[in-house]
Amino acid sequence: MSCCERHGAAGPVAVDPALAGLRIRPERLLGRLEQLAAIGRTDEGACCRLALTDEDKAGRDLLVSWMRELGLEVRVDRIGNVFGLRRGTEDLSPVMSGSHIDTVRTGGRFDGNLGVIGALEAIETLNDAGVRTRRPLVVGVFTNEEGARFAPDMMGSLVYVGGLPLKEALDTVGIDGKRVGDELARIGYAGDAGLGLYRPHAFVELHIEQGPVLDIEGVRIGAVESLQGISWQEVTITGQSNHAGTTPMRLRHDAGYCAAAIGTKLREIARELGGDQVCTMGLVKLHPNLINVIAARATVTVDIRNTDEATLREAERRFAAFLEELAAAEGVKIETRRLARFEPVQFDDGIAHLVEHHAGRLGLSCRRMTSGAGHDAQMLARICPTAMIFVPSIGGISHNPAEDTRPEDLAAGTDVLLHTLLELAS
Amino acid sequence: MSCCERHGAAGPVAVDPALAGLRIRPERLLGRLEQLAAIGRTDEGACCRLALTDEDKAGRDLLVSWMRELGLEVRVDRIGNVFGLRRGTEDLSPVMSGSHIDTVRTGGRFDGNLGVIGALEAIETLNDAGVRTRRPLVVGVFTNEEGARFAPDMMGSLVYVGGLPLKEALDTVGIDGKRVGDELARIGYAGDAGLGLYRPHAFVELHIEQGPVLDIEGVRIGAVESLQGISWQEVTITGQSNHAGTTPMRLRHDAGYCAAAIGTKLREIARELGGDQVCTMGLVKLHPNLINVIAARATVTVDIRNTDEATLREAERRFAAFLEELAAAEGVKIETRRLARFEPVQFDDGIAHLVEHHAGRLGLSCRRMTSGAGHDAQMLARICPTAMIFVPSIGGISHNPAEDTRPEDLAAGTDVLLHTLLELAS
Repeated sequence: MSCCERHGAAGPVAVDPALAGLRIRPERLLGRLEQLAAIGRTDEGACCRLALTDEDKAGRDLLVSWMRELGLEVRVDRIGNVFGLRRGTEDLSPVMSGSHIDTVRTGGRFDGNLGVIGALEAIETLNDAGVRTRRPLVVGVFTNEEGARFAPDMMGSLVYVGGLPLKEALDTVGIDGKRVGDELARIGYAGDAGLGLYRPHAFVELHIEQGPVLDIEGVRIGAVESLQGISWQEVTITGQSNHAGTTPMRLRHDAGYCAAAIGTKLREIARELGGDQVCTMGLVKLHPNLINVIAARATVTVDIRNTDEATLREAERRFAAFLEELAAAEGVKIETRRLARFEPVQFDDGIAHLVEHHAGRLGLSCRRMTSGAGHDAQMLARICPTAMIFVPSIGGISHNPAEDTRPEDLAAGTDVLLHTLLELAS
Repeated sequence: MSCCERHGAAGPVAVDPALAGLRIRPERLLGRLEQLAAIGRTDEGACCRLALTDEDKAGRDLLVSWMRELGLEVRVDRIGNVFGLRRGTEDLSPVMSGSHIDTVRTGGRFDGNLGVIGALEAIETLNDAGVRTRRPLVVGVFTNEEGARFAPDMMGSLVYVGGLPLKEALDTVGIDGKRVGDELARIGYAGDAGLGLYRPHAFVELHIEQGPVLDIEGVRIGAVESLQGISWQEVTITGQSNHAGTTPMRLRHDAGYCAAAIGTKLREIARELGGDQVCTMGLVKLHPNLINVIAARATVTVDIRNTDEATLREAERRFAAFLEELAAAEGVKIETRRLARFEPVQFDDGIAHLVEHHAGRLGLSCRRMTSGAGHDAQMLARICPTAMIFVPSIGGISHNPAEDTRPEDLAAGTDVLLHTLLELAS
């Protein structure tokens, strides 16, 4: 059920003429994005704020100070999600918007940050205009969306909606051997608010596309109606280290070769299944990792995604069958560990329709689309009507210092967010 | 020209009956091997004495103390090679024996160490028996044979024979960013002896096989008459990092995929060329090396070896052609850097014959063979008649904590070394 259907408003909704002309202030939006991007900036110009690091703490502190300046009531829950509440004229379930501010090691300025700062900007615009909404508005900042330090990704929102027990999340050990619970306490964000603190009436997340579709087609707004399914595995191969010169090929148990074979097999699976199927081996670690030693051990990560659950399962099936063949052929032990598995998600058609409607009303080209990336919105979709707003990524570049979005697109997406929230909260 | 031919002794040589019964003392040999193996021992039971580290220094110090106890004159040259001289009855060019004591990160107890300690044991046996040889005997310990920290491997012996300028070797930067010259000075082994200090009459190196041939065939001594050619390259791939979920396969420039494709191509080249051809990708480094990011950069090492120079060149040609195709197909930049290139080596037939002869006389089974690994002996072969003596590696395991050789084979090889040196120095 869409939230529009719930309110009996299936078609375009009439906008209060007094509010139809409301616009966010682009320079304020861009200024906050720059201030946040300066925290964790690398020599290459990337943003490196891995979850629960000192940089993440500095970013959170800045956000909390902004929330307080805007008069929001700030609460932190037990997995470190941060919420800023703006009360409505009635004590109803709130309309929530937000995203995350943790990044990958080579993150850009807008991934996640835009969704949080865009929601703050929408609220400040309402504050400036003296507009009170009927429903409360909540800005949510979710812990560890990227999963670059702690798996699974989207951890904060997953715990929030009850999809992962809190204890299990807190006990997760990261790539540097640190525990989520300890790191949350260390940076001062092990809050006391209960999980699922607010049960939203609706959730809307503004985000950069992180793919090339809008940029290539010259479309300014994506009304995101669905999201790819994600399958993450870690594969560990145990072979036998030996001398690279004296060990005949037929006698090898080469974990490094197996890692390579996995990388090429993933490409083959993606080609065979075609369509939207994507497969990536993003991480490889060999041991002892020396030029003249056949690797004894290899660890690789496997990222498989598809918008169709049946095809995603077929990709997983082919990959698992390949691992069995490979282990037998090379005489190695291969173990897999599931790091994350999410089925494709259908968002709320009514909210996607609202996004399209307001984009059109603001004179912005818009298309319905699927998200290739995982987002906190997919978790929130389990407990409330949800959709996303995408703005173009130049060249489709993401998780890269060269990630960029035109300022006018950042502002346009935030205007669409403002009016979508305004309508949902009316 | 073999040194036996040089002396007009092409066939088996008569052994002084008084010396024919001379034997080394196995418990003393094994005791020294254990003492040296204790330096740099890892939790896994491996030996980790990467060249010019503190562990390497400790091993060198122990060897020098043993040389002094045996009355040898110790000299260190400018690339850190250590020599112990035992004078002969005449001032002739010396017979040299030795090897290296640096190891890979997961080295065994005998690789290199046996050749150095075996030569010391042969000399102590002569000392005990009061035997003076006509020619001087020199024990050589060569710097950085493994190349696991600094490329190229066999650096000390290569510089010694004039195959690499001293300055270039000293300026070599290792995997940890340290410079050979600085590390030599730091550990106190930047000696002042000139390069090529001794011009040997002959060189003999005792070594474990590091391959399975002797062990599988149950043969106790290998008379090594030739050595594989070695081609080492570092390959760097520059692609574009991007989001693993949102970037369609056709738009990727994936350095991680290219690393994988190189690993599988190497296996294919080895299979196509067959015979003794071996190819190994022992090292892989991806950047940023994260599960959900397409790798922007990859560095891999490529180790290709063959006993036949023409086939080795064909393997290199096929690999280079593949890199060109791959760079074009994936839209990445691929750069290669030559780390080492040695042609196959023919050893001295006369010395190999002496090894066979003495093995037979001592009642030890023996076969002529090729070395699959690189050894300092291949460098010495450029300036004097040279051959090697191999003893079996159990299971052919090498560069691995499980490397092992039976004590009776260690002793047998050292007895053959003793009598080969004795005859060459007569």
